[in-house]
Order: sequence, then structure tokens, then C-alpha cells
Amino acid sequence: MPDNRPHVQGARVLGDLNALRAIGAYKTGVHKPTFSEPHMRSLQWLAQRLPEAGLDAEIDGIGNVLGTSTKSGPKLLAGSHLESQNFAGWLDGPLGVVYALEAARVINPDSNTNGAVEVASWCDEEGHFGSFLGSRSYVGGVTEADIDAARDRSSGKTMRDALRDVGLAGRARAQAERGRHIGYLEAHIEQGQTLESGGLAIGVVTSIVGIWQYRITFTGEQNHAGTTRMDSRKDAGLALVRFCVDIDDRFPRLSGPRTVWTTGRITLDPGAPSIIPGSAEMLFQMRDDDPGVIERLEDVLRSMAAEVSAQGRCGVAVERLRTGAPAMMDASFQRAIEAASLAFAGGRSIRMPSGAGHDAQVLATIMPAAMLFVPSIGGISHHWSENTDDADIVTGAEVFVDACRRLLAG
Amino acid sequence: MPDNRPHVQGARVLGDLNALRAIGAYKTGVHKPTFSEPHMRSLQWLAQRLPEAGLDAEIDGIGNVLGTSTKSGPKLLAGSHLESQNFAGWLDGPLGVVYALEAARVINPDSNTNGAVEVASWCDEEGHFGSFLGSRSYVGGVTEADIDAARDRSSGKTMRDALRDVGLAGRARAQAERGRHIGYLEAHIEQGQTLESGGLAIGVVTSIVGIWQYRITFTGEQNHAGTTRMDSRKDAGLALVRFCVDIDDRFPRLSGPRTVWTTGRITLDPGAPSIIPGSAEMLFQMRDDDPGVIERLEDVLRSMAAEVSAQGRCGVAVERLRTGAPAMMDASFQRAIEAASLAFAGGRSIRMPSGAGHDAQVLATIMPAAMLFVPSIGGISHHWSENTDDADIVTGAEVFVDACRRLLAG
Repeated sequence: MPDNRPHVQGARVLGDLNALRAIGAYKTGVHKPTFSEPHMRSLQWLAQRLPEAGLDAEIDGIGNVLGTSTKSGPKLLAGSHLESQNFAGWLDGPLGVVYALEAARVINPDSNTNGAVEVASWCDEEGHFGSFLGSRSYVGGVTEADIDAARDRSSGKTMRDALRDVGLAGRARAQAERGRHIGYLEAHIEQGQTLESGGLAIGVVTSIVGIWQYRITFTGEQNHAGTTRMDSRKDAGLALVRFCVDIDDRFPRLSGPRTVWTTGRITLDPGAPSIIPGSAEMLFQMRDDDPGVIERLEDVLRSMAAEVSAQGRCGVAVERLRTGAPAMMDASFQRAIEAASLAFAGGRSIRMPSGAGHDAQVLATIMPAAMLFVPSIGGISHHWSENTDDADIVTGAEVFVDACRRLLAG
Repeated sequence: MPDNRPHVQGARVLGDLNALRAIGAYKTGVHKPTFSEPHMRSLQWLAQRLPEAGLDAEIDGIGNVLGTSTKSGPKLLAGSHLESQNFAGWLDGPLGVVYALEAARVINPDSNTNGAVEVASWCDEEGHFGSFLGSRSYVGGVTEADIDAARDRSSGKTMRDALRDVGLAGRARAQAERGRHIGYLEAHIEQGQTLESGGLAIGVVTSIVGIWQYRITFTGEQNHAGTTRMDSRKDAGLALVRFCVDIDDRFPRLSGPRTVWTTGRITLDPGAPSIIPGSAEMLFQMRDDDPGVIERLEDVLRSMAAEVSAQGRCGVAVERLRTGAPAMMDASFQRAIEAASLAFAGGRSIRMPSGAGHDAQVLATIMPAAMLFVPSIGGISHHWSENTDDADIVTGAEVFVDACRRLLAG
């Protein structure tokens, strides 16, 4: 163990994470949609802890929690989020917030360290109302009109109504002060199996992949499922399932080593058991940190669609709904995480891209940003059974806090 | 033309059909869900026409319209239905009702014909609230508890509330009087292309196929669509689409000449673009008039499911929701239709099963029953663009009325 080991208190980290799990608990996970009662209680819990780290706490007009320091010297911003996906895991978000809190508690009172860690909990990272609205608000990317337009995807409730109901209407939204921070650091569970299967403790994130999303629509001929013989059908649903299988057969030869693609939703219209679907739609997503790979795959997708349409039975239209923008993580921050990993995790780290989106990609637009991952048991994510070994959680905290200290030391 | 040609008035038949189309018109079709305002107005329209045919009209406690005759001699029951599928065609139902009305108008006042045609419009053949509730009520197959339980599939409104709102609550439901009728005859558009493609005028229905329906459920592992690498996924949606394609590849070699199968609905759970579906479900239907063929195909379905489950990535469960009961049409009625077709359609008829369900299958449980089909343009059905040439409609009416006269003559 090195001499300068920060006094991370593993039991305190685990205790905090379990305290947050107890708010809005669901099985071994949590259910805390944005602006729900347990979400708001979690924000208040954090705001009450921040003074322990010498930070002034504020919940701003979009539900971001910010802990700011009056200490002199460089400031490092660190954090994650506290709301959850519906009926999801206990660590997705809280892990990064509690690590940031722990770093602030260890580092800020330490008179031997110049500067301070400031803590952020970004609102709605999970996208109940939009896409990274909290962190985007902080970097100046959200207008009042954007907030007027935002609605809860499940309930349809407007963000304005939600903000009013939780008592945040009319509050100012905190804005990043240019030059205040040397950068942003965020920790997260891996949500995959790379670390677990390699016996590793730390993922040093090199980039956050971009997400490209498509609506693929099939048009056939709606008809009676009893009277229309098989050879005269124009079944849009059948065209869709064949297309999905073709994607899965062709893409592996054409994709990059970490490209992923997913059909998350299928809708047959009209969706009745006795009616041959006249139209069908799938939501399709691809992720990679190399836009060149995606371009190639999108070309394949479009030529597959053209082939099917040319056969004349069903028409296929490919519409891009979302264009990815991969975010590169700061190189010197990556080196600091690796050095901390060498000091506190026996160097059991690996460089890897993040397949999921995170607030770090938003912060990266205005300051150096980086992320570290800890292992996920079985790679399970966005499900209440998501988990990480306690020992891995504590090791991650030690690496995180040491990385913060190294970054502040410059 | 034979001497005994009944005086079918083609213009009157077309006029009546167009009058019914004008009630609840949608594009060139109609939108008349069961107990909607245009549906009720259509029932009243029919009730007002029936006295022209010497019939006493009654709308009963489940929305059946019945026209009964006091004339002596044999009685033939004829009819169809007046509600429609949502935003569907103008002839599906009304054609059979107007033919029955025309037969009654031509035959009942004719003192040279012994007996009478009685007219029925069966409520909810299209299944908004259940399965053939009107005709099943008439044959004694619907209890008060069944009506208590019935709900509109779209709105969730109870049948009791619907009956009260249209003023039918508390009315008696008409019951078949055993021995009153020599049988039941129903005309319908083909809803397929057999007649059109063969240049034929009349389909003589031999049987109404049975419908077997299944829920096929796939269980994988819900996970994050960005962080879960392709080779470690257990994507229930992908298992489903591969299963659908396998069905379509294997069934043609194993099915009968007229077997049809359809996947009408697919649901991926949770159905979000960034989540790998943890479970998936499809509604699958097969139709044939030979239960032996279906048994063979169901065996294939179940062994396919076992194969996929055995591969260990996703589990598949096949659950039968509905078991078909094909209905055979009366042989002497089929001969009467063929004789009428020879007299009025140059013998351009063909014997064929009905792939769709009809009230005739319900009436067939208590009396001889038969059906005749007229051509459908392009085979389009359950869609507002459904249509039949006026000339084919009139020819069909002539054959229908002549068949009625032949059946009453015994």
C-alpha cells in the first residue's frame, strides 16, 4: 500500500449506497423515476450529506444537485445521477454519486491537498423526460422552450407540471462557470461482462460510443388471415421478421469488434390475430465509437431494404431518427485512473469504450472528462437484479478517490 | 333464362347496400363497431324494411334483428350481420342481410311459393365484444353471465353498459324455435381471390374452417443495448423473429393445400430502443378444415420450441388459446346452390371451404346450414377498400333467391 493512501472508508461507501437503495426499494433494486417521491428524497439525502464534505448544497431548477466548495485551488467536478430506470438496479447512478461524495469527504478537508472535489447529481440521466436534460442544462444546452416541450415518456406529464409538483418551479438552473473545473470524473458500473470475465477491477473508459437509431417501416397489404391464401399474401410482419434475421446473419461479418445492434420494439399493424399485418415497424439501434463502421452498416441496411422492396411484395423504408456523436475521454485523465488502479487495484485495469451513454459525454463538450467502470455481476444492467461485489465497490472507490487526488495534484 | 325466374330487382339490392354504406361511411367503406350509433341506425333501417317482405320485425335483447313470418309452410332462415370491423368494407355482412331481405321480398308475397324466408341480422359477428355472441345467443349458447363478462375489446366498455346505452337492456333475447326452420342460408363476399382469379361467380361453401390460436412466449435476459456484447446476449426478440422465419420455411412442406397461418401481433418487452428484450410474445393462428393437418403442424411448432429451448439461450413456451371446430355445410343445400348457379350464373361456381368464420357455423350446430360466396375484387377484406363488381352482386342475389326458392320447394 502506498503511503499517501486516502482514507476511503469502505463501510461508509457501502452504507451510503444501501441508504440510497432503501429509498424507493424494489426487490434488490429500486424504482425511482425522475421527480418521483423516492427520487426527490434521494436528492435531499445527498444535499444533506454534502456539507460533511465542506460543500454548499443546492438543488437547482431542473433537479440537479450541486455541491460547491469555497476552498482555493483547482476544482474537479465529479458525479453521476440518482433517478433510476423503472424497476431497475441500485448502483446505476448512485455508485458514481457516492464515489464523488466520498472523494469530497476524503480530499476536501485534507489541508495537504490543494483544491477540492465538487459533487454533482445530474437530473434525468435515464431519460424519462428527455436526453441528459440535467447535464445538458448545466452546459447550456437546454432552453426554456425545451423544458416546455419535455414530457414523461410513460405518463405524458409535462416537465413543467412535474417541476411544479416537486417544488422546483421558478428556481434558477445552475450553469457551468467556464474555467472553474479542471475536468469531470464519473464512475459507473460496467453494465457488461468485460471486467468480470477478465478478472479485472477497473475499466478505463476511452470513449463513449455514439448511438444511431432508426425506424424501419414495412408496407404490405392488410388482409383477412383466414381467406387470403399463403401465396397471395403481402404480410408486412413476415417481411419484418425476415429482415431482422437477415441483419443478424449479415452484420457480424461487417461490424467492428464492439459494434452492437438491437431491435428493441416491433409493432404489427393492426395487431389483431385474424388480420394479416398491412404494415409493420421496428425500432433499430446501432452503437459504435467509430462512425465509419456505422456508415458501412447503414449502407448495408439501406441496400437490404432496397432488395426487399425490389422483390415487390412489401416496401421497406429506413429512416434515421438519431445520429450518434461518440465522445472521446481525456487522455491525461485516463492515465491518472490507470496510475490509481496500479496503486489500489494491482493494475487490474483495461481500456475500453463505453457502450452506454453517460453524462460524461455531455460534460466532455465543455471540459476534459473521463470515466471509470467497476465490474457488474453477470453483466446485468437496467434490471433490478443488477449488482456488484462489495469488495469491487470498495476497490473502485479507492481508485476513484486516488485518481481525483492525482488530478488535483496536476 | 328459365321461366320461373324470381323477380330479383338488382337496382333495389344495390340501392339497399348503398343506403347501408351511407350509414357510418368511411372512405368507400364503413366504420360501424357493434352498438355504435351507425350500427344501431343500420339495425333500425333493416327493421323498417322487413314489413315490405311481410315480416314482423324485432330487435332483441342482444341486438339481433329478426323478421318472422306468419305465412304457413316451411320457413328458411337467411341473414348475416350489420356491424363492421373498424374502418372496414361496406359488403362484409350487409351483402348477406340484403340478399336475405331481397329473397323475403321476392318469395314471401308470391302465392305460388309455399313457405317463407325469414331474415336475421346477427349482432357482433365481427367480435367486438366476443365470439359470435348474437347467433350463439339465438342457438342458446350464451348465458347471462357471459353477457355480464363481455367487454368491448377496444374501449373496455361492458356489454351491459353498451346494451343499456342503446336502449336494449332488459329486452328478451330471441331463441331458436326447434323445428321451425328447414335450415339457414348465408351469403358473403369471398374475402379471397379464388373466384376472381378463376372467372367464377359463386363459391359453394363446403365447410367453415376451424381456427386454432396460440400464444408463443420467448424468455431471454433483459439487458442494456449498449453494454451487452452481441455474443453474450439472450435476446428474446431475436429468438422470436428467428422462430417466425422458421415457421415460414418449414410449414409449406407440411401443411394442407388450404392451410393458412398468421402471426398477427408481436410484443417485445419492455419495448424500448435501448433495452435488449427480456421476453417476447407472438399471437399465432392456424386455420384448416382438417384437424389432422393442424395436429401435425402443432407438433412441429412444439418440437421447434423444444429445439430452441434446448439450445439454452432463450426459453420458448407454446400455449394453445383456442381450438378450432370446423363446421360442415349441408350437402343438399350445396346442391341447391349449385342448381341455382347453373340457372342464373351459367354454372360458374366452385366448391370451396371458407377460411373465415361466419354465423353459419353457429347455426349449423342446430339446423342444416350453407353459404354462398360472391367474388371480392383483389381478394381485399377487412379493409375499407373491399369491393365487388355491381354485376357480380346482382348475379349473386339472383342465385341466392333462386336457391332459397328451391330449398323451400324441398
